[in-house]
Amino acid sequence: MESLFAKLSSQNVNIPFSGKTRTEHDLLGDKEVPVEAFFGVQTLRALENFNISGVTLKFFPMLIESFAMVKEATAEANCELGLLEPNVKDAIVEACKVVKSGSLNEHFIVDMVQGGAGTSTNMNANEVIANMALVSMGKKKGEYSFVHPNNHVNLSQSTNDAYPTAVKLAVIFSNQQLIDVLKSLIEVFRTKGVEFKDIIKMGRTQLQDAVPMTLGQAFEAYAVTLSEEIERLEQNVKLFHEINMGATAIGTGINSDPDYAPLVTKILARITDLPLVQAANLVEATQDTGAFVMYSSALKRLAVKLSKICNDLRLLSSGPRTGIGEINLPPKQPGSSIMPGKVNPVIPEVVNQIAFKVIGNDLTVTMAAEAGQLELNVMEPIIVYSIHESIELLRNGMRTLKDECVIGITANEEHCRNLVLNSIGLVTALNPYIGYENSTIVAKEALETGKSVYNLVLEKGLLSQDELDNILKPENMIQPRKFTKK
Amino acid sequence: MESLFAKLSSQNVNIPFSGKTRTEHDLLGDKEVPVEAFFGVQTLRALENFNISGVTLKFFPMLIESFAMVKEATAEANCELGLLEPNVKDAIVEACKVVKSGSLNEHFIVDMVQGGAGTSTNMNANEVIANMALVSMGKKKGEYSFVHPNNHVNLSQSTNDAYPTAVKLAVIFSNQQLIDVLKSLIEVFRTKGVEFKDIIKMGRTQLQDAVPMTLGQAFEAYAVTLSEEIERLEQNVKLFHEINMGATAIGTGINSDPDYAPLVTKILARITDLPLVQAANLVEATQDTGAFVMYSSALKRLAVKLSKICNDLRLLSSGPRTGIGEINLPPKQPGSSIMPGKVNPVIPEVVNQIAFKVIGNDLTVTMAAEAGQLELNVMEPIIVYSIHESIELLRNGMRTLKDECVIGITANEEHCRNLVLNSIGLVTALNPYIGYENSTIVAKEALETGKSVYNLVLEKGLLSQDELDNILKPENMIQPRKFTKK
Amino acid sequence: MESLFAKLSSQNVNIPFSGKTRTEHDLLGDKEVPVEAFFGVQTLRALENFNISGVTLKFFPMLIESFAMVKEATAEANCELGLLEPNVKDAIVEACKVVKSGSLNEHFIVDMVQGGAGTSTNMNANEVIANMALVSMGKKKGEYSFVHPNNHVNLSQSTNDAYPTAVKLAVIFSNQQLIDVLKSLIEVFRTKGVEFKDIIKMGRTQLQDAVPMTLGQAFEAYAVTLSEEIERLEQNVKLFHEINMGATAIGTGINSDPDYAPLVTKILARITDLPLVQAANLVEATQDTGAFVMYSSALKRLAVKLSKICNDLRLLSSGPRTGIGEINLPPKQPGSSIMPGKVNPVIPEVVNQIAFKVIGNDLTVTMAAEAGQLELNVMEPIIVYSIHESIELLRNGMRTLKDECVIGITANEEHCRNLVLNSIGLVTALNPYIGYENSTIVAKEALETGKSVYNLVLEKGLLSQDELDNILKPENMIQPRKFTKK
Amino acid sequence: MESLFAKLSSQNVNIPFSGKTRTEHDLLGDKEVPVEAFFGVQTLRALENFNISGVTLKFFPMLIESFAMVKEATAEANCELGLLEPNVKDAIVEACKVVKSGSLNEHFIVDMVQGGAGTSTNMNANEVIANMALVSMGKKKGEYSFVHPNNHVNLSQSTNDAYPTAVKLAVIFSNQQLIDVLKSLIEVFRTKGVEFKDIIKMGRTQLQDAVPMTLGQAFEAYAVTLSEEIERLEQNVKLFHEINMGATAIGTGINSDPDYAPLVTKILARITDLPLVQAANLVEATQDTGAFVMYSSALKRLAVKLSKICNDLRLLSSGPRTGIGEINLPPKQPGSSIMPGKVNPVIPEVVNQIAFKVIGNDLTVTMAAEAGQLELNVMEPIIVYSIHESIELLRNGMRTLKDECVIGITANEEHCRNLVLNSIGLVTALNPYIGYENSTIVAKEALETGKSVYNLVLEKGLLSQDELDNILKPENMIQPRKFTKK
Repeated sequence: MESLFAKLSSQNVNIPFSGKTRTEHDLLGDKEVPVEAFFGVQTLRALENFNISGVTLKFFPMLIESFAMVKEATAEANCELGLLEPNVKDAIVEACKVVKSGSLNEHFIVDMVQGGAGTSTNMNANEVIANMALVSMGKKKGEYSFVHPNNHVNLSQSTNDAYPTAVKLAVIFSNQQLIDVLKSLIEVFRTKGVEFKDIIKMGRTQLQDAVPMTLGQAFEAYAVTLSEEIERLEQNVKLFHEINMGATAIGTGINSDPDYAPLVTKILARITDLPLVQAANLVEATQDTGAFVMYSSALKRLAVKLSKICNDLRLLSSGPRTGIGEINLPPKQPGSSIMPGKVNPVIPEVVNQIAFKVIGNDLTVTMAAEAGQLELNVMEPIIVYSIHESIELLRNGMRTLKDECVIGITANEEHCRNLVLNSIGLVTALNPYIGYENSTIVAKEALETGKSVYNLVLEKGLLSQDELDNILKPENMIQPRKFTKK
Repeated sequence: MESLFAKLSSQNVNIPFSGKTRTEHDLLGDKEVPVEAFFGVQTLRALENFNISGVTLKFFPMLIESFAMVKEATAEANCELGLLEPNVKDAIVEACKVVKSGSLNEHFIVDMVQGGAGTSTNMNANEVIANMALVSMGKKKGEYSFVHPNNHVNLSQSTNDAYPTAVKLAVIFSNQQLIDVLKSLIEVFRTKGVEFKDIIKMGRTQLQDAVPMTLGQAFEAYAVTLSEEIERLEQNVKLFHEINMGATAIGTGINSDPDYAPLVTKILARITDLPLVQAANLVEATQDTGAFVMYSSALKRLAVKLSKICNDLRLLSSGPRTGIGEINLPPKQPGSSIMPGKVNPVIPEVVNQIAFKVIGNDLTVTMAAEAGQLELNVMEPIIVYSIHESIELLRNGMRTLKDECVIGITANEEHCRNLVLNSIGLVTALNPYIGYENSTIVAKEALETGKSVYNLVLEKGLLSQDELDNILKPENMIQPRKFTKK
Repeated sequence: MESLFAKLSSQNVNIPFSGKTRTEHDLLGDKEVPVEAFFGVQTLRALENFNISGVTLKFFPMLIESFAMVKEATAEANCELGLLEPNVKDAIVEACKVVKSGSLNEHFIVDMVQGGAGTSTNMNANEVIANMALVSMGKKKGEYSFVHPNNHVNLSQSTNDAYPTAVKLAVIFSNQQLIDVLKSLIEVFRTKGVEFKDIIKMGRTQLQDAVPMTLGQAFEAYAVTLSEEIERLEQNVKLFHEINMGATAIGTGINSDPDYAPLVTKILARITDLPLVQAANLVEATQDTGAFVMYSSALKRLAVKLSKICNDLRLLSSGPRTGIGEINLPPKQPGSSIMPGKVNPVIPEVVNQIAFKVIGNDLTVTMAAEAGQLELNVMEPIIVYSIHESIELLRNGMRTLKDECVIGITANEEHCRNLVLNSIGLVTALNPYIGYENSTIVAKEALETGKSVYNLVLEKGLLSQDELDNILKPENMIQPRKFTKK
Repeated sequence: MESLFAKLSSQNVNIPFSGKTRTEHDLLGDKEVPVEAFFGVQTLRALENFNISGVTLKFFPMLIESFAMVKEATAEANCELGLLEPNVKDAIVEACKVVKSGSLNEHFIVDMVQGGAGTSTNMNANEVIANMALVSMGKKKGEYSFVHPNNHVNLSQSTNDAYPTAVKLAVIFSNQQLIDVLKSLIEVFRTKGVEFKDIIKMGRTQLQDAVPMTLGQAFEAYAVTLSEEIERLEQNVKLFHEINMGATAIGTGINSDPDYAPLVTKILARITDLPLVQAANLVEATQDTGAFVMYSSALKRLAVKLSKICNDLRLLSSGPRTGIGEINLPPKQPGSSIMPGKVNPVIPEVVNQIAFKVIGNDLTVTMAAEAGQLELNVMEPIIVYSIHESIELLRNGMRTLKDECVIGITANEEHCRNLVLNSIGLVTALNPYIGYENSTIVAKEALETGKSVYNLVLEKGLLSQDELDNILKPENMIQPRKFTKK
């Protein structure tokens, strides 16, 4: 008994246990369950079997909520088909509402990393809902003859359809939260784009001075590139709208009513307010994890773009004296215990690291997807865990990037302009006026002597100062321009 | 000079050189070029700089063709804008047609793996087209005052817009070929689905006996799951329809005519017969490689699915005596020098390995995309190489899988049926009739005694033989079924 | 203030706060710190900046312990060099012992995923140790004039040497725990190898029947292959014995005493009882994360092997009726809510998934290592987190595999033998006696007719029953054997 | 027949075929073989089955040579054990010498990417050697009764021991070539370290100005970090010294003489001049690909380090005017068709891309290793291909980096020094003399006013100019230094 409570404690279950238990049993025999527990015997088996990551279901409340929605929908469908008594249905639906409220989250104690293709998670949900239903009926927890985790809560289902459906819902909801943060980050980049629209600065390709642009164009480009991610996420999350409820064990729908699959899908669509559809081929849908692969790839792409942007922010703010130094990131913490005054780009740095973790998770998802065999992919739990971890990291990372960094970025306008004026890349803009050969001569001489292109052109009398100033006006260099061929 | 021809030979350039040369020069000085060569001095610099993979442009003819299309479109646009003389335009367009025909492929000698963000590839194209244009005008190769690789063929362009545009076209065209093969593979799986539609067999989850299905359902599921890949590939390849012609160096369009970008996009759309559009933000479009990340992910997903299917084929054909043995793959080669009569599933095995390479390539693409900095992603050449290699491997792999394996698969119908009849999983179908508890008793006894479920049910008088035979009819087990609750 | 306690709560800091605070300040200004907190202002900044993964330092007690060892060693070295007063040294050493005991773990609240190259972690340690030292001196927390986090606890150090040194120690210690579990798993496989040594079974290559072996040989091979991992882990963990204490900011040792680096290394070696050595080149050692890449690769290799073994266990236990069914894994939980009697290989399944996560983590480590720039790799925190997570998962996974699975595996001896006797692969053993051609004829006929090789050989009079029985004795088929050529 | 020659041509087989054929047959039937071909029927089956990557055995001559060594050793061992006639042995040994010379490379036509666990490669070698032996005996190609590919050349072997042994030898030899190039690259970095030893420059952490160092220290660090790779490669390549000759099909040594395994190992050790040893457990050795995983990880680590170094080279040479500009890479090609005078760091760029491909290949190797099942890993061909490709890319990349880049790097000494003098990071060196608080004040004021630390310290009278100059002498800032505490 002690070992039971020790195990519960090792998984950080925060329920005030009295130490009293009730007895439950399953195929493998009897087990004592704490009387306070809404979970039951099968959840306890999972606790014993899978003490793996320490990250339990309660860390992902959206997942718990999604399971409650699935169970609610199935109860309604079963009742409508005459397979479940109305009073049992009512109790289950009531219990699902309680679970959705989050107040029983501490009873979702199963490790996210588990064998059994999600059976333990599904049974944890079945047991908590059954016991909550019992309580709401005025029965005692464990009196499963009235509401049974399998026979009633899991009726017409298999883990193989209920679990993937619930985890898909959870990803859809989490994705919406992710997009909300993404949108606010885009907004901030866009605002900075406007704020910096008149700051002329040097554009760089291959880390070499190229041609001028505005700092606003740079930040606007970040807004644009991230806004494409909204589309990618939305497009790929749609793959989860196809669900396999009614597939039961392997997609053949064995032991389910022919009307059940379309009915439960319709009800679940209503409950979730999502355009869910029944998969055209349930055998395929039950074994396939392609939607996770694709959505994880979209997360990976978002991570790649964020990492690239953060690399840029670190480059552009490098210095303060011996780097590029075009922008300043808001100081967040003393940068060094040994170097007075040093402040580091810690926020972009953490986002880079998040990106590497998300990319690593995408590989995990890929390998797990490839490991599916025959009629089921048993590796789905690690897919679910990895994707939810990635979403969480990206959401926190983007919120942090926005609030703690981008919003407070300032520009060193004069330095930016001086770099342009002092650059050799200016010569490109003169190309159409003084010709490629003269330009090359000027460029070479500038590089060798350290003189400015501006002065060299005047010195050589290639253009008048007025002409030169006109050509080099920012508005003339940062966009296409009509000119007559020489 | 010897070293020049040695280098050309080391890159497998198959042109019958006479040993005579012409002199060309560029920013870095003079160089001798073989008189037969349509390429010029800058291509030769690339040859010296990048002796890396041994895989040169000519290995990917689609890429060469795509460059020709881009150069043809720019020549027309430049001419229409009055930037290029009509006779030069005509010569360039004529040269592009020759290049598209493939007859100059041997002159595309640059290594696919190169620094410089594709400059070498672009210049190889510019030089071959310029020289071909010269020849078509009756001039000599190298007389660049008439048609110049930079001033005429590359007019209004930068590598930074011409290169990504051409490589995107090449992926679009290659993707079409890929989909063609994919479709024919799907067709074969579908045909097998029909052929095997009446063969009842055991379904398996977690490698454990589950419930019956037909072999046809299994193969139909493969057809369905692969057909989803057509959609994914087509959806993701659309991202390449957005091009950045007119961006020039960094997307600001410096030194280009304001009318040029829309015009060249329109012309290129016509030439390629593709719905190409100008990127809404050219600065973003010039630095972003997100489309490659997403498309590579779609290739990865296809690889994951093919690998899963091939794993299944190997499992289902395992044996001949001590495995599952439900199907036979056509024998392709003696399997063993030491074990007489052994035949191995060599075709699925090679497809598994292709999948691993494609997934590795996807990682390469991801890392290269992340490594972009500021206004350009200089790592695009390895992205292009990896994606084209993956497409090639997948195309060959799927064609091989179809022709050398799936088309010839036969079923061991009797063995399949016997496995079902002998299975304990049958009991699931009896569940609604004899109840979960009786089912469990029968299942346990079957497992312990080795008896069949069929006989045990009769023995115990739980059902009559007629009832039992009726329940266990394939058509009753492989789909949902109305039944009255007991 | 509320937001402070809300943030602390959001990171699951379990300290009974009274709500009272003290004021601390740093380069960026003042901050209120809960009076109960041993951490200080800079730790709080990290709390605000990095609310990322929810996984804080306290999840990895070994890491905290290692920091205490480093700080203890530096205090002693500084004192010996006359840089630190003995009484301050004593207080710091005392504080380090308290920290090592684990009783202050709740005060290590910084997120494992952080920017700043570990500065936040280092400062969390500096602050807790300084305040603990103050308390042990009878001072109040925050009275840093007596013991200062930077000036005393961090004396002669930079995050850039203290942090990597501490995290290396933590990996070394964790690795030892990992190896302990690995050894016990090997032991169990070895025991099973002995237990199953007389059970003859079919060996399979490419999932096709090959030649006989014993089940003991199979399990002994698992023991052997895993025992190689002990060597790999031990060999690669040695790379962490090279530390860079004394490097200070970038490896030049600026502001450190020339005698400090060797002295602190010697003291730390004594405290840790490890053969630590000073890196030969401290500039290199400060920027390089190669040791992490190599050690993570060794973890990955262990994961690959465990995954392969678990795949095998699942294959060999597939069935119970329609798979290979040579072994039985102990049942851990009811396998299905819909299929009575189904029991699944849930333990190997969870180990497979752990392997995929470890391989994903290895990619994260690789990318983070590649992202180092110039004199420092700022991405070390994600490396540290990923490696510690992988170690933890592997340790839990292997312990679970051993206790919940391998230890309870049983063999279906008769079935194993029958598969061999019924196999066509037997014919290989007859090869030297009846010739390759006869063998092939027998093999083909067996395959076509379903007859046994044994009967066919007798039927054809190729060998007498005595000869045949002798050749087919297990001891004659599972090892090399002298025979005379025919 | 035409299709035969078309296929040969499609795999780029450069043998002048007359069009005449001989007939050969195997288990699957008859086939026409070109009379000029040294390969035979089974090689042709492989040609038909595996038209996958276009990269055939001849691209890796080391692999062909290694097979010849294995076959030579087995012929000698078999002869010594009385299993092979001396004249046949002599002919085979003679043929192996011819194969080793490379003159028959064009006859190794099998695709590197193949199913069958290497059987096709092994048979290609067996057939070429058998036919060459026949020719050397004065027989005709195809007269296999005298020397048979299976019965004589492959005697006492299985693909499952001969193939992995040969590919291991090839990696060992290729690794030596790789290390040779690596050593010469290290040498050049070391030379640059000496050349630049007196150039003071700013060190940077987190892309922010840190403290001074010499450019020589930076380059010496690159030499040191790469020199560690020699050790890692050498240590990990040793894993290949353990071979499994004598394992035959699954490691049990069925049908082999008990003396054969030790004997052939000893002979092969002599022929290769390598310390080869027989694996302690041949069953394990036959199924395990761990050595490839580990060696590939070492290649990955080398790639990571090269990529990091190349990133640094690109950063340090960024500019010429608006970047860091401390060093100049030798110009290799005009950098831009649109920007006159632009020169890009194309060589480091190509090495970065090589690194990404090598890391992708490592993933391929990992997945292939994980996919091994039961007594054999059938995915070895893709492992072999990926590792050899990585070695080739790294060798070419490092040679190119050395010759075309590092050797020609020059320093902008004055600019380096000015950056230091102008930096705020200088203040760290003053820390021990003017105190942390004064340092912070100076740092802040410098940052805000743009004044130099040097002038501010003088202005504030914190130190005399003499003191200041002394402290700021390069030799005093770039290493530890005794100083008395204030």
